[in-house]
Amino acid sequence: MSADEQRAIDPSAAGEALRWKKFPLLNDGFVCLVDWMGSDSAIAQAARVSYGAGTRAISTDEALLRYLMRHRHTTPFEMAEVKLLVRVPMDTWRQWIRHRTASVNEYSTRYSVAIDAAYTIENDGWRIQTASNRQGSDGFLPPERGSAFSEEERAFHEAARALYQKRIDAGIAREQARKDLPLSTYTEAYWKCDLHNLFHFLSLRMESHAQWEIVQYATTIGEKIIRVLFPVSYEAFLDYNLNSLHLTALDQGVIRRLAGRTPATEEDFLQVQDPRWQGLERCRERDECRQKLRTLGILK
Amino acid sequence: MSADEQRAIDPSAAGEALRWKKFPLLNDGFVCLVDWMGSDSAIAQAARVSYGAGTRAISTDEALLRYLMRHRHTTPFEMAEVKLLVRVPMDTWRQWIRHRTASVNEYSTRYSVAIDAAYTIENDGWRIQTASNRQGSDGFLPPERGSAFSEEERAFHEAARALYQKRIDAGIAREQARKDLPLSTYTEAYWKCDLHNLFHFLSLRMESHAQWEIVQYATTIGEKIIRVLFPVSYEAFLDYNLNSLHLTALDQGVIRRLAGRTPATEEDFLQVQDPRWQGLERCRERDECRQKLRTLGILK
Amino acid sequence: MSADEQRAIDPSAAGEALRWKKFPLLNDGFVCLVDWMGSDSAIAQAARVSYGAGTRAISTDEALLRYLMRHRHTTPFEMAEVKLLVRVPMDTWRQWIRHRTASVNEYSTRYSVAIDAAYTIENDGWRIQTASNRQGSDGFLPPERGSAFSEEERAFHEAARALYQKRIDAGIAREQARKDLPLSTYTEAYWKCDLHNLFHFLSLRMESHAQWEIVQYATTIGEKIIRVLFPVSYEAFLDYNLNSLHLTALDQGVIRRLAGRTPATEEDFLQVQDPRWQGLERCRERDECRQKLRTLGILK
Amino acid sequence: MSADEQRAIDPSAAGEALRWKKFPLLNDGFVCLVDWMGSDSAIAQAARVSYGAGTRAISTDEALLRYLMRHRHTTPFEMAEVKLLVRVPMDTWRQWIRHRTASVNEYSTRYSVAIDAAYTIENDGWRIQTASNRQGSDGFLPPERGSAFSEEERAFHEAARALYQKRIDAGIAREQARKDLPLSTYTEAYWKCDLHNLFHFLSLRMESHAQWEIVQYATTIGEKIIRVLFPVSYEAFLDYNLNSLHLTALDQGVIRRLAGRTPATEEDFLQVQDPRWQGLERCRERDECRQKLRTLGILK
Repeated sequence: MSADEQRAIDPSAAGEALRWKKFPLLNDGFVCLVDWMGSDSAIAQAARVSYGAGTRAISTDEALLRYLMRHRHTTPFEMAEVKLLVRVPMDTWRQWIRHRTASVNEYSTRYSVAIDAAYTIENDGWRIQTASNRQGSDGFLPPERGSAFSEEERAFHEAARALYQKRIDAGIAREQARKDLPLSTYTEAYWKCDLHNLFHFLSLRMESHAQWEIVQYATTIGEKIIRVLFPVSYEAFLDYNLNSLHLTALDQGVIRRLAGRTPATEEDFLQVQDPRWQGLERCRERDECRQKLRTLGILK
Repeated sequence: MSADEQRAIDPSAAGEALRWKKFPLLNDGFVCLVDWMGSDSAIAQAARVSYGAGTRAISTDEALLRYLMRHRHTTPFEMAEVKLLVRVPMDTWRQWIRHRTASVNEYSTRYSVAIDAAYTIENDGWRIQTASNRQGSDGFLPPERGSAFSEEERAFHEAARALYQKRIDAGIAREQARKDLPLSTYTEAYWKCDLHNLFHFLSLRMESHAQWEIVQYATTIGEKIIRVLFPVSYEAFLDYNLNSLHLTALDQGVIRRLAGRTPATEEDFLQVQDPRWQGLERCRERDECRQKLRTLGILK
Repeated sequence: MSADEQRAIDPSAAGEALRWKKFPLLNDGFVCLVDWMGSDSAIAQAARVSYGAGTRAISTDEALLRYLMRHRHTTPFEMAEVKLLVRVPMDTWRQWIRHRTASVNEYSTRYSVAIDAAYTIENDGWRIQTASNRQGSDGFLPPERGSAFSEEERAFHEAARALYQKRIDAGIAREQARKDLPLSTYTEAYWKCDLHNLFHFLSLRMESHAQWEIVQYATTIGEKIIRVLFPVSYEAFLDYNLNSLHLTALDQGVIRRLAGRTPATEEDFLQVQDPRWQGLERCRERDECRQKLRTLGILK
Repeated sequence: MSADEQRAIDPSAAGEALRWKKFPLLNDGFVCLVDWMGSDSAIAQAARVSYGAGTRAISTDEALLRYLMRHRHTTPFEMAEVKLLVRVPMDTWRQWIRHRTASVNEYSTRYSVAIDAAYTIENDGWRIQTASNRQGSDGFLPPERGSAFSEEERAFHEAARALYQKRIDAGIAREQARKDLPLSTYTEAYWKCDLHNLFHFLSLRMESHAQWEIVQYATTIGEKIIRVLFPVSYEAFLDYNLNSLHLTALDQGVIRRLAGRTPATEEDFLQVQDPRWQGLERCRERDECRQKLRTLGILK
């Protein structure tokens, strides 16, 4: 659907249609919209009261919202709220919960027996550790090698669950019986966040360096839910935040020194590189700069 | 209206009737409800998902909400949100804004000309500084003395406004022209807060030590808005928070030592007072304890 | 050591002696002090500047700090900070991390191979699920029954580690290999918190309803570290927060109606109970009230 | 002093020399360092424990801190704290206090008589409202016109103070007497903030759109205090945050379409502008893009 088609839809009615609709994720996870407060126009309304007559010059809500997003006037976006129900492996949840400006009610395995489901990997889903980036992955094990790991994983999950159940059956306290559940065990939580902080979450978790699993959740939240409820704000977020490019003071110096000879060659680039990078055989910052310049078409 | 009558009303419909209704405060202030998310039952719902099967034993939402409030399980109350528009003297706003867990869009006197209204005191409204409590007031100036102060206040407000207007007319920047506005000048703001943090605000600002002005605002928010939107949660807040009594470890010792001779006399009280208070001529903590024991009917 | 002896010690020197000293917890955990900012007198100093001449009447820092704590003037306690290094099972960490007003740097199992240690239970350490309280435990399995669970636990930990190692050896990405680590696996983290929020953490986690494991950590932090660094504040915290008793509006009504017949009998108690409790066969709130009255010596 | 000379100095000793040193600001304001926790190396230390063996590859603390700053790994910077004492006009304080992730103890005019000092403007300091930017100022009134405003300001301050004093002398409560103090009245506060949030404050308040007064405070804090205590982190903040340039998705498109013809002409620019801007006579976003391209030397 194009942005214009999207905008023709009433976000409020579209939101009602979304409520409690579960978007499946991984083998047994989901996210769904429980409730929300506000809309693009309610955000603009708060900004207009805040800026008073000063905002009348910006004629449309769209122009205003885009201006606010571009200039880091973040408080109006805090005026909208989104409440989700998510089902997610504890391993992924450990990353999610690091975002502190959200409200959370998580399923408690002290009160109740743990959810009997774990995150599993298909034969072709085993990722290989990258050499270049310590925290990422790169490519997959061939499925014929992966299948052994998938089988072993299922057997381990069964053993883990049997151990847990045996403890429960023996009357051991739930809070203690759970101690050896695998991190792949699913948990569920209500997660509520204002739109500004939700965009911050998305900007960190829809990004290529985030772990694949949480990228799936974040992208679904962004594309399937936030885009529907707040189409103008979401587009502004994409244009000015997620898909923006950050040029450091050093990057800017390189670009200025390349003026007049673009698209430049690698030789040009090395010649005008930041003095601090010269002489270094490996320099991550120089690599990052090179990549940005390629993205901009400044470097071949 | 009784609690039962209150409860017979659908909070959602009652909330709709409240939206944008301005409750007047002071001479020219107000609070009004702009929007909200959630309800008593939505809070209970979040708690039930969170505690899982463990909460089924608590049969009704009311029993569950009261249990949560009593035991400081505060996270479910964060699942509800309230957005208000308030008009308030800057002096009062300076106290209000100290509550950091809220979202705010305030009228900007950089962007726009300042609101042309100030908080004024009637002849019989001039409060006298207490001797006992450094931060409070106690009683009023006689109106015949107060009238001179009220007249002088009006004249001062006019002079302040004239000065401001003269600067604006001369083309001085709004951000600088405003520098001598009196603290009594009204400001307006969208203020959004989750219900847990709103209760915290109310517990500090509906309380007798808070300044009279902010008590008016907090009480109106509590009694006119929150009671309507969240009747069960609000009653639990009154019973278990606002109207609760905190006994320190020392207070408890005094009560235990008075067992069997209640209602006790002042002599009894002094005899069993905390050893650390003995010998002190003035002791604020002892005074506080005495007051609590009177409230409980333990001391005459 | 008595409070007076404690106070004779210079907290700053005592703090220096604590730095990096590991207090062992569970089978392989610890907490240690890395750094801190402030002291009892620095807290009082901030309060005095804040309250200006108004605080001169309170002669000593101790009287001032106790006054602040008693009256919920919490901001001066935010002026002190404590930074700890902790080693804790992920299961316990999941509870810990729910306290959002802290700064955290946790060991990353995306960047590095997971810590090769898990929380284990001795033969006599297997706790039994309580019937009365859904989230707690009560008593222990007899050691001769527990030994089988301890053995099985060791075997499971070995199997889990072998599985993890096999994945790592096959070149599977660390971020994915870790997915089936048991929750008992240790993690490490820097955890930094201001003193007000630390007291809030302690008040929730040194309390009898918290899980045994986190109670051990919280009590060690409180008794071994905070008591040393902030002896006056910590004592005030114990007297006015941790060991205080909260009387609801309903509890107070019961006490008032018992005036003159204390220590009262169960019959008296039932006679004056809150009208809302009458007729209920089981009533958790009534049970709580009864327990408080016993603590106060008002009820036999 | 060059960065290298700066780095040769022990930040801890330099910090000690700064403690309580008041940097004067405006006519009667100041900031001074009261206390701090941490250092560049303590930040790196927390990051290393957090990232484990994974960070050993980054050889020096400096390289690590710059990497963290460049890649928005903000949590290690939260491990450092700075506590300041500031004296600032209430008008400026109203902006300052909007930063919620800080701890504050402000001078209370309920407890104590208000500070007898107000922010005054010299003859040549009266700023003119800009036409282009609703919130800013641009140039000054000629001093011969300004002198009348400065005189009037002094007279108004005297009248305001006399009114306040008269109320105090009549026994009116301080909390009420203060209501007409001008916003230019000075207040004092302890303000404590972690380094990550302090950098966020600086990035918003050292910036050209912030109000001149708060820019003075922020710049002094940054240049005179943070640069001394955390020289490596501060330089990384300048290079990667304050002096960085943000290219939106639309800006990037323009740059890509200009590849090969830089430095480009205004005609080139208009030809390749974003389709959404075409046809608009005035377009703030296009103006912003043009300005960025000039900064980069891409546009003449």
